[in-house]
Amino acid sequence: MLFGKVAGTVVSTRKAESLEGLKLLLVRNVDVTGEVGKGYVVAADSVGAGLGEVVLYATGSSARQTDITNGKPVDAVVMGIVDTWDVDDKTVYTKYASAKTADV
Amino acid sequence: MLFGKVAGTVVSTRKAESLEGLKLLLVRNVDVTGEVGKGYVVAADSVGAGLGEVVLYATGSSARQTDITNGKPVDAVVMGIVDTWDVDDKTVYTKYASAKTADV
Amino acid sequence: MLFGKVAGTVVSTRKAESLEGLKLLLVRNVDVTGEVGKGYVVAADSVGAGLGEVVLYATGSSARQTDITNGKPVDAVVMGIVDTWDVDDKTVYTKYASAKTADV
Amino acid sequence: MLFGKVAGTVVSTRKAESLEGLKLLLVRNVDVTGEVGKGYVVAADSVGAGLGEVVLYATGSSARQTDITNGKPVDAVVMGIVDTWDVDDKTVYTKYASAKTADV
Amino acid sequence: MLFGKVAGTVVSTRKAESLEGLKLLLVRNVDVTGEVGKGYVVAADSVGAGLGEVVLYATGSSARQTDITNGKPVDAVVMGIVDTWDVDDKTVYTKYASAKTADV
Repeated sequence: MLFGKVAGTVVSTRKAESLEGLKLLLVRNVDVTGEVGKGYVVAADSVGAGLGEVVLYATGSSARQTDITNGKPVDAVVMGIVDTWDVDDKTVYTKYASAKTADV
Repeated sequence: MLFGKVAGTVVSTRKAESLEGLKLLLVRNVDVTGEVGKGYVVAADSVGAGLGEVVLYATGSSARQTDITNGKPVDAVVMGIVDTWDVDDKTVYTKYASAKTADV
Repeated sequence: MLFGKVAGTVVSTRKAESLEGLKLLLVRNVDVTGEVGKGYVVAADSVGAGLGEVVLYATGSSARQTDITNGKPVDAVVMGIVDTWDVDDKTVYTKYASAKTADV
Repeated sequence: MLFGKVAGTVVSTRKAESLEGLKLLLVRNVDVTGEVGKGYVVAADSVGAGLGEVVLYATGSSARQTDITNGKPVDAVVMGIVDTWDVDDKTVYTKYASAKTADV
Repeated sequence: MLFGKVAGTVVSTRKAESLEGLKLLLVRNVDVTGEVGKGYVVAADSVGAGLGEVVLYATGSSARQTDITNGKPVDAVVMGIVDTWDVDDKTVYTKYASAKTADV
């Protein structure tokens, strides 16, 4: 899995029938330091992720191992919202960073 | 999934029998800002995409999860035509951009 | 799928038993303009492609969706010989280009 | 498989239900000489790897071939802790390098 | 498949149980001209490849299509030892190159 940041949504009216009802997120790559990169992926949303949230996404056949993506032509799925990660015992990212007073 | 722009079609007369009748599209990579890049993929068309349209395509085993690609040696499929996407609440791409008067 | 040019053949005497009888082609990458690049792949041949021919190849589990590769440790297969492709309504490649008088 | 170094852990509270109980490791890429690179992957832990350990991880559908990842939306798994590797008969990495007196 | 050169072996004592008995090879990438590159992969050995031999390896789910890797968390397998390959009718690599008198 890789980290990504939800940048927006993708609207597709004409599509494979099995994709009806799936929410498609535009997810930008995030590196190990938390920086957003140039790469992106369009992923099905299985966890109700919102704009700006940092998420985990899985690709390939693993992206079809959720109830909503099973058997569908989908090669990427957001399967977790990241609370925090650390590198060498230092917290690199926490979702509460930008709202310290209210949430922490 | 990734964004792509339909650049043309590919004709192959001598091919695996199971591919008979499949339409093969030449799809150029499109980045998150809507720019066409150097990369490309040849993908089976499952939605009737036309020249110049911006599409979504899936790769790997996920490309075989449509009625027309099931069980075939196909590793990329166009499974949606993109209407619009946004980045940080700004519309980056809309298929109606080049025909504002007539279509919007 | 991607375009490739058949550059040669690969001989392997000691190999997984299931690979007996498979023809292994050395295929060089071809970009969207028809130029041969540095990359390559070794692919099983399912269509009788010859030296110098421009082909389509599929990778991953999709490479096992032909009669000759089914259930074998093969991650790339040549599944079509390219006649022609076009970009924005201009023909970029045609297999008859080098033999215009005789074949067209 | 590739070598990686366990850099930390990833916490995700809101996630696909099937992921409950899985430990998610942040694994940084390690090259053939043992150097840590910029790349990373988030992988499920199937062997009880600890911070700083050099591990082997598998990706794609192969990452689901363990008891704890079977059928789950997981595309990377740590499936081995590396004791040692050599290149051209010279030991490049050994896990006992930093504790020679105590452990060897 | 890609060409690789067996650079050494990898020892992992603590690993997924299903991997017991598998020999893990460190394989360096080899380009189309026969040059060894910076990249590498750790692959299960299904053919008894020795140090310094040039091999073919397959990745992804295709790496599990051998008797010894079936159902295991392994994403790369050495499935052939290369005797020779040619590019445009010129032999680029032959395993007998370094022992011309004795073997050819």
